[in-house]
Amino acid sequence: MSSQPAPLLALDLTGTFAFGLNGALTAVRAVRLDVVGVVVLGMITALGGGFVRDVLIDSLPPATLLDWRYYTLAAAGGLIAFALSRHLRRAERAIDVLDAVGLSTFAVIGAAKALDAGLDVAPAILLGVITAVGGGTIRDTLVGQVPTVLRTGLYAIPALVGAALTVLTIETGVYGLPSALGAATACFLIRVLGLLFGLNAPEPPETRGTRAGA
Amino acid sequence: MSSQPAPLLALDLTGTFAFGLNGALTAVRAVRLDVVGVVVLGMITALGGGFVRDVLIDSLPPATLLDWRYYTLAAAGGLIAFALSRHLRRAERAIDVLDAVGLSTFAVIGAAKALDAGLDVAPAILLGVITAVGGGTIRDTLVGQVPTVLRTGLYAIPALVGAALTVLTIETGVYGLPSALGAATACFLIRVLGLLFGLNAPEPPETRGTRAGA
Amino acid sequence: MSSQPAPLLALDLTGTFAFGLNGALTAVRAVRLDVVGVVVLGMITALGGGFVRDVLIDSLPPATLLDWRYYTLAAAGGLIAFALSRHLRRAERAIDVLDAVGLSTFAVIGAAKALDAGLDVAPAILLGVITAVGGGTIRDTLVGQVPTVLRTGLYAIPALVGAALTVLTIETGVYGLPSALGAATACFLIRVLGLLFGLNAPEPPETRGTRAGA
Repeated sequence: MSSQPAPLLALDLTGTFAFGLNGALTAVRAVRLDVVGVVVLGMITALGGGFVRDVLIDSLPPATLLDWRYYTLAAAGGLIAFALSRHLRRAERAIDVLDAVGLSTFAVIGAAKALDAGLDVAPAILLGVITAVGGGTIRDTLVGQVPTVLRTGLYAIPALVGAALTVLTIETGVYGLPSALGAATACFLIRVLGLLFGLNAPEPPETRGTRAGA
Repeated sequence: MSSQPAPLLALDLTGTFAFGLNGALTAVRAVRLDVVGVVVLGMITALGGGFVRDVLIDSLPPATLLDWRYYTLAAAGGLIAFALSRHLRRAERAIDVLDAVGLSTFAVIGAAKALDAGLDVAPAILLGVITAVGGGTIRDTLVGQVPTVLRTGLYAIPALVGAALTVLTIETGVYGLPSALGAATACFLIRVLGLLFGLNAPEPPETRGTRAGA
Repeated sequence: MSSQPAPLLALDLTGTFAFGLNGALTAVRAVRLDVVGVVVLGMITALGGGFVRDVLIDSLPPATLLDWRYYTLAAAGGLIAFALSRHLRRAERAIDVLDAVGLSTFAVIGAAKALDAGLDVAPAILLGVITAVGGGTIRDTLVGQVPTVLRTGLYAIPALVGAALTVLTIETGVYGLPSALGAATACFLIRVLGLLFGLNAPEPPETRGTRAGA
């Protein structure tokens, strides 16, 4: 069972469900899949980032395999996506917002866990980002697409901000539930603003202006 | 060295060779590869699923890297596939059957190991499936194809049945060699029937009937 | 901090920077990426092979996440590639040579670490090769390309030679800094000769002569 305080745990479980749902929806729209494929890709999206973190900090078996609420919610998200993929198009905005909740919570909890495992500041931030974007990256790779997190949109950057604020507050001794929620909120707001205004992170000089031809 | 009873060990080694052979053949037909690539992809197919399981249950180094029979048979399968890929087309049915032996044995042994490592019922079943289909999934991803296990045919479902029966018999205290062989046989039969009749698992409503356009 | 002798450490850090630089350059030429994507792919190229090795030999967290010099140099390589990708085309030969330094050092150190972790000769050689080529393989997979190491050129073979020589000298009790540098030099020379003369490893009979149509 997770030892997170209740509000963080609630956000974490919400994010797990949202990642399972959104991950499965993304997969089902990219390639033709059967029910097993859809649910598996939903679960990978929801749990994969945490798996990679837990492997690298040697906290095994992964926490989400030891707590039934996590894998059940991830699978439930995948099953709902399988059954209702057509109807869920109308709820795209709501799902994006839920997904941003997951991104924020995963980045904060991931960075805190990595620091707690004895990693230094920079690798702890890196593992926070990996927790947040790793699952979606594995899913995209499995369905034959370049991971969206590597290409477009403010997805990794808000996670980086959330993880960095988390590490900063822990290192300065002011970490606690309020600062964790603050770091998650910062990540969430950047992500949602990026969605609203279609913002993107800088591209290398070579490829600027070639979006149409990409 | 493995602590499996002799019949399970024999099936496990047979499956390892079959996965190495079949995995390398699949790879060599998908993309142009040199000898190193073919053998490596055969080994990944044969050993990769068990690697993922052993990482997640923290049983490292992986069992198949500690027992020379496993990695040698996996490499032998890959080498034979490299040398004889043209001639092995005629043996496709026989190789499919050997491959089903691997699928069944890996699902059963994988689920039993996960349960033994302290995981609960559902994650243990999940890890049984991952043991069985993980290697082929990594291979397909490396050669740029959407993993067949996610798309078509009864491949993950028989593994799920074999893993679930294994967990069920262990939890009810009747696990032993006969029930392990029974669970493997159930998986094997579903897989072979699926091959014979070209069965597929259900697809999401959105994509039904669009196979031709996929 | 690393316990390598100074010359090996210097080569290892050089290789880490070169892999970060070259990995990010390769990624930026394959697909359109933002700054986060470029740096992440550089870091994955530089650190990924060692991650896989450290996971499989249960030496976690990975050494390169515990020593700031490794992850900083990997990230620096990625950032430089992002900023200067256009200008670095002129330095392609120099970068290839630096990359060969990384390949050689990673293969030697990787094989020695695996043997030290209690693995037998063959798996230790395998893990040496994985250390050397694993990062590039993950990068290629993430950007949707069949890993070059599996397809073309003498890339995995020199790593195999370097890892095998390392294991041989350790097993015969003559391992030390001179023999480690000797094994790395053998790998380096084969790689550079392969680059100069465009050599390739043997392909399976089925695909020989079909290069143009591949």
